Amino acid sequence: MLNKTHTKYIQSLHHKKFRDELGEFIAEGPKVVLELLDSCEFVCLYIIAVESWLQMNEKLLQTYPGPQVFTVKDFELDKISLLTTANNVLAVFKKKATAAFIPENKITLVLDGIQDPGNFGTIIRTADWFGIENIVCSPACADMYNPKVVQSTMGSLSRINIVYTNIEEWLQQTGINKYAAALHGTPVNDCKKLTEAVIIIGNEGKGISDAVMQLTNEKITIPKIGEAESLNAAVATGIILAQVC
Amino acid sequence: MLNKTHTKYIQSLHHKKFRDELGEFIAEGPKVVLELLDSCEFVCLYIIAVESWLQMNEKLLQTYPGPQVFTVKDFELDKISLLTTANNVLAVFKKKATAAFIPENKITLVLDGIQDPGNFGTIIRTADWFGIENIVCSPACADMYNPKVVQSTMGSLSRINIVYTNIEEWLQQTGINKYAAALHGTPVNDCKKLTEAVIIIGNEGKGISDAVMQLTNEKITIPKIGEAESLNAAVATGIILAQVC
Repeated sequence: MLNKTHTKYIQSLHHKKFRDELGEFIAEGPKVVLELLDSCEFVCLYIIAVESWLQMNEKLLQTYPGPQVFTVKDFELDKISLLTTANNVLAVFKKKATAAFIPENKITLVLDGIQDPGNFGTIIRTADWFGIENIVCSPACADMYNPKVVQSTMGSLSRINIVYTNIEEWLQQTGINKYAAALHGTPVNDCKKLTEAVIIIGNEGKGISDAVMQLTNEKITIPKIGEAESLNAAVATGIILAQVC
Repeated sequence: MLNKTHTKYIQSLHHKKFRDELGEFIAEGPKVVLELLDSCEFVCLYIIAVESWLQMNEKLLQTYPGPQVFTVKDFELDKISLLTTANNVLAVFKKKATAAFIPENKITLVLDGIQDPGNFGTIIRTADWFGIENIVCSPACADMYNPKVVQSTMGSLSRINIVYTNIEEWLQQTGINKYAAALHGTPVNDCKKLTEAVIIIGNEGKGISDAVMQLTNEKITIPKIGEAESLNAAVATGIILAQVC
């Protein structure tokens, strides 16, 4: 059973301010929690779950020593969950230090202000599908530890190295070819496979900022046949990565 | 100002049962509302908006005679909105009758149980980008008039003909080639442009049902390079449509 202090503590992690202060974040649902536990990339502090789920995963949980385990009723889980319907388990993990990297001989994704947590999480998951190891985010991007981001990554969070930095400076220091997703450019189907590149995806509404666009070498466009005003940022990322990876 | 009856009526449209009974649905935010008004595909019954938005769009709104207009305060809009932060305007539209169609000489999308409203809306928007005119949905798919679907389509709802039907029967009656998004099949990058085809996308967790899979002629796969267990359904739809449209 959870006491008031525990409940308040978990609820505080719904907010970036407290995630930053404590260096901790929450993950929900069996799939995401088990993937993060399994990756050993994040230290798990607490597992809060309904009895049936704990019984089903008893042996598995013994292989992850460390986290304090709380058995709760559905209504208690509902109180601390951000999901429409709480999904059996919620866990608290320690954030990990992000590693600086040199993107040689690989494709790196740069995100210029992806603000929707669902989009951001789906982009992380899509990058993981295509074997991308590193994502560089502008400070305006959503927080990678936002519960909705964690949820949408479906466990991919543990496999991608994500850094937040001034992307203009980062691009200036990076000598390899930079491709921008843009409204006018080389049609994506004419792009060749790339082994070393930076792919830049812009904000959902405003696209890539002028300052960043000036630092790119080539523009890639997804030709429009119908009438939609724009494509979802995660869908656009998937289409470009499917072509160049 | 809204009275209690109005507020309850709008809130009832958050639920499928009442949308079905009344044949009405809600759309929120300037972009989606204006696109639906502009399309003339849906009869607008009510526009409920903050004063500043109504003033800004006064002339435009005069070109759409018919809807009853309510000026509300932010807190009143919050009460009837499903968005985290209500976005200036909410409108009620009449559903439209869906038209039966013969998918000759075009590409038709078939959705086998797409349940997440955000995914479904993004698929509709993506289909619109690639010039798809028709989507056939199994009854297990999300309701196309779910407010989250309407929101994620970003206005594309007015341009796509969406029908719900028994997709096994529909596929059996359709003589043209049927391509299934599947884990094992022709790599998507080896697929040629298609002018007449049915593309089938499966449920987020379970994929395409066996009964539906047996009715397909070819399987298309998006090769996995990294570790993610699966791709988001809307991302997968975008990648396939970018290749074959």
